[in-house]
Amino acid sequence: MTSIDLNADLGEGFGRWRLTDDEQLLSVVTSANVACGFHAGDAATMRRVCELAAARGVRIGAQVSYRDLAGFGRRAMDVPPAELAAEVAYQIGALEVFARAAGARVAYVKPHGALYNRVVHDEEQAGAVVEGVLLADAELPVLGLPGSRLLELAGKADLPVVTEAFADRAYTDEGTLVPRGREGAVVTDPGTVVTRSVDLARHGQVDARSGRRIAVRARSLCLHGDTPGAVELARRVRGALEDAGVRVEAFA
Amino acid sequence: MTSIDLNADLGEGFGRWRLTDDEQLLSVVTSANVACGFHAGDAATMRRVCELAAARGVRIGAQVSYRDLAGFGRRAMDVPPAELAAEVAYQIGALEVFARAAGARVAYVKPHGALYNRVVHDEEQAGAVVEGVLLADAELPVLGLPGSRLLELAGKADLPVVTEAFADRAYTDEGTLVPRGREGAVVTDPGTVVTRSVDLARHGQVDARSGRRIAVRARSLCLHGDTPGAVELARRVRGALEDAGVRVEAFA
Amino acid sequence: MTSIDLNADLGEGFGRWRLTDDEQLLSVVTSANVACGFHAGDAATMRRVCELAAARGVRIGAQVSYRDLAGFGRRAMDVPPAELAAEVAYQIGALEVFARAAGARVAYVKPHGALYNRVVHDEEQAGAVVEGVLLADAELPVLGLPGSRLLELAGKADLPVVTEAFADRAYTDEGTLVPRGREGAVVTDPGTVVTRSVDLARHGQVDARSGRRIAVRARSLCLHGDTPGAVELARRVRGALEDAGVRVEAFA
Amino acid sequence: MTSIDLNADLGEGFGRWRLTDDEQLLSVVTSANVACGFHAGDAATMRRVCELAAARGVRIGAQVSYRDLAGFGRRAMDVPPAELAAEVAYQIGALEVFARAAGARVAYVKPHGALYNRVVHDEEQAGAVVEGVLLADAELPVLGLPGSRLLELAGKADLPVVTEAFADRAYTDEGTLVPRGREGAVVTDPGTVVTRSVDLARHGQVDARSGRRIAVRARSLCLHGDTPGAVELARRVRGALEDAGVRVEAFA
Repeated sequence: MTSIDLNADLGEGFGRWRLTDDEQLLSVVTSANVACGFHAGDAATMRRVCELAAARGVRIGAQVSYRDLAGFGRRAMDVPPAELAAEVAYQIGALEVFARAAGARVAYVKPHGALYNRVVHDEEQAGAVVEGVLLADAELPVLGLPGSRLLELAGKADLPVVTEAFADRAYTDEGTLVPRGREGAVVTDPGTVVTRSVDLARHGQVDARSGRRIAVRARSLCLHGDTPGAVELARRVRGALEDAGVRVEAFA
Repeated sequence: MTSIDLNADLGEGFGRWRLTDDEQLLSVVTSANVACGFHAGDAATMRRVCELAAARGVRIGAQVSYRDLAGFGRRAMDVPPAELAAEVAYQIGALEVFARAAGARVAYVKPHGALYNRVVHDEEQAGAVVEGVLLADAELPVLGLPGSRLLELAGKADLPVVTEAFADRAYTDEGTLVPRGREGAVVTDPGTVVTRSVDLARHGQVDARSGRRIAVRARSLCLHGDTPGAVELARRVRGALEDAGVRVEAFA
Repeated sequence: MTSIDLNADLGEGFGRWRLTDDEQLLSVVTSANVACGFHAGDAATMRRVCELAAARGVRIGAQVSYRDLAGFGRRAMDVPPAELAAEVAYQIGALEVFARAAGARVAYVKPHGALYNRVVHDEEQAGAVVEGVLLADAELPVLGLPGSRLLELAGKADLPVVTEAFADRAYTDEGTLVPRGREGAVVTDPGTVVTRSVDLARHGQVDARSGRRIAVRARSLCLHGDTPGAVELARRVRGALEDAGVRVEAFA
Repeated sequence: MTSIDLNADLGEGFGRWRLTDDEQLLSVVTSANVACGFHAGDAATMRRVCELAAARGVRIGAQVSYRDLAGFGRRAMDVPPAELAAEVAYQIGALEVFARAAGARVAYVKPHGALYNRVVHDEEQAGAVVEGVLLADAELPVLGLPGSRLLELAGKADLPVVTEAFADRAYTDEGTLVPRGREGAVVTDPGTVVTRSVDLARHGQVDARSGRRIAVRARSLCLHGDTPGAVELARRVRGALEDAGVRVEAFA
């Protein structure tokens, strides 16, 4: 029987502001990427999300980011590697307190936003993220894009790596994501997202933008929680996966 | 043989800015209060200070603060207790990563600046700091002023408490600090500071501002590192203590 | 014929986060309290709100705050007067650029959140806010609570003062606001809020919490924009005022 | 008779931290690039520096930066143009309050750090900086590197442009700066810096790293204030310029 992990970004508010419906999302996903204060996520929110996640048995991951509240971590930054490594470790450590207090642990690390995109190709920053993870815990899995420099360097450093796919993003024939901003980069039709989720989980395959069927092997599917209807779509995806005989569970 | 701990604030720069001569201070003190990013202390600085402290066998403490870079944590804030507790835990967790990476541990917590002064009397905030410490580690010592609400509530929560005294601050007859801003609140003559340090360490006594000799029992002396001549004075204090037969060592 | 100003807080998002429906509120109010970046309000949002307000002929006010994004300016802070005055001036100046670029001007200043409450009684901080306004513009009106230290000191400094009332807050017999947190402090029934708005605008009177009718003279009514149904309620208030023959217009 | 402007970065502290000796530098330079709060420069510091500059007749410029206190504005950021333009305008407006309160005006704009380097080549960001300046004041001069996209686009937008040169930086034969990090990029010998300053001011020429003499026409020389001996070197440069018959004065 096939199994798949479902991950989503949570706790992405700050102070007075809220972005995602954390309680509802935590009833759907198996892994929660918790914002750690650099692009979003104040300390009280981090605590609350960790408590909710732990109570539901949802795995807690550190969603590490550039230090950029004003830009929500979506503005690429040329952070010197030594600073970036320390900033990554700082965020993991801060979240670990709340995960432990809730009876859990930080179980993986996933970069956010512009950092996520940057470490697909940027060897220096990918290496800095790996160094930051190693500072925090030499056995902490790293979640990222298959073929990314990040996962390559994490693997070389003997960190467990976990691949993820996006049912709502278009793929090229080479299996890379069509960049946001390009036409058709985002799949908006809910039914199509559901079908693609099942294809990815059961067959490790998805229709590329060209129409060609390609292989995309991923241990986790990333769901988005910050759009209208996001929770409802997430539920449909999970339901369709279970109906198709896929076990929805956190990665080992 | 009497022993005393010497603590000082370190790592209180931020990014491009430096405040204290951390390397020199670490050759004098036995406990380093490391800034955790809320009033000072970027991640790279925290890492570096932890490495230096661990290499010298100096104990690492989390110097937790209000979230106030612009005011250096010196502006009292009415932070709701739940937020304050989470912010305290967040800072401890962030520092713990660097302490562990350096082969050490966060060994105690000391509030900084306005928070330090506030929790002398403010029960709500003192309780929030204790809650924050407990979230991080139920056995973590708390360093503070004898008679403060903070130490009282920490003791009730079964946290180890460590008292400290200030050789360069004037005391009232009741053993409380003369508030900054009042005449004579700060003792500036280096020779007097040295003498008072030895009195405090050897006899648990100091001359109050009135001239009366009073008892001030403290397990640690706080040295200041951010004034001209601070390192030199710290060395003289340590030398005089050792000459007087006081063992300078971290609290048990 | 009686006239009244309607003011509301706008532009209180930050980066990725939004709080108020600025476009809708700007079709109801006559004065927009625009967040200036210290508790909310990034630069791009400030620009957009100023453009929208100017296009609709809505007056632009600087909603100045403590520097506290994480607490949304709701945590009172002991900011030294010289720092507070400069911070107030800084915020006014930043907003002025966007008001002018939109063909308008910053037309008044209103403190936000904890600062608003503090300067009701705190002479030092009230004086600092007045100093900050004077640094920016010696003829800039100050909007605040009748009887507050802020308006008293603003008046002494020859700044125009504008009083405001709250239809959705309970009043004591002495005409002061029942503190939030006390029972009945907030009036939640929409119909009652509408009735009280008309009473305040037409008669300068309102029913105190005791049931006694008291005088509350105010040149502006403050509407809240950050609660569900806020825009709809604001429209009802404005409609009822106009139906009662009250001219809704910005203060002179 | 030849004349030259001398500019330097000032007010680059933040809260408790200081970087430059503003008072001393203001007795040497004719134009002060004042930090506006995004990479350095709290409101109280901005006020103080403006007062000192105005009292000495030193011109006040807005040193605008990426929003990056932790990185001192030295980390390039992919800020979307609309956000960058608004952030530039925000900073200029904030400084304008203090310049006016001191009886002066913001007289020019100079980007700082990573933004300065980026707009040499990056058309999108250079255009955003120009847009930000235009939002604030359509007649505000822009100070930058000869040949930069920034000055080119500023000129097209009918903004006055002011060129600057660096006596302590090595030049290529093409008249561009040797990038920091390359060998010999920085000229450290004080006597050489003085000689090059006079060459630049009197002859519009300097020795390139190759030894070849090249033309570098600049209306202003940039002095650095944040290194040991900076003030003394600045004095020597100014003295040598005056001895050589160069009039040291702000650009027209």
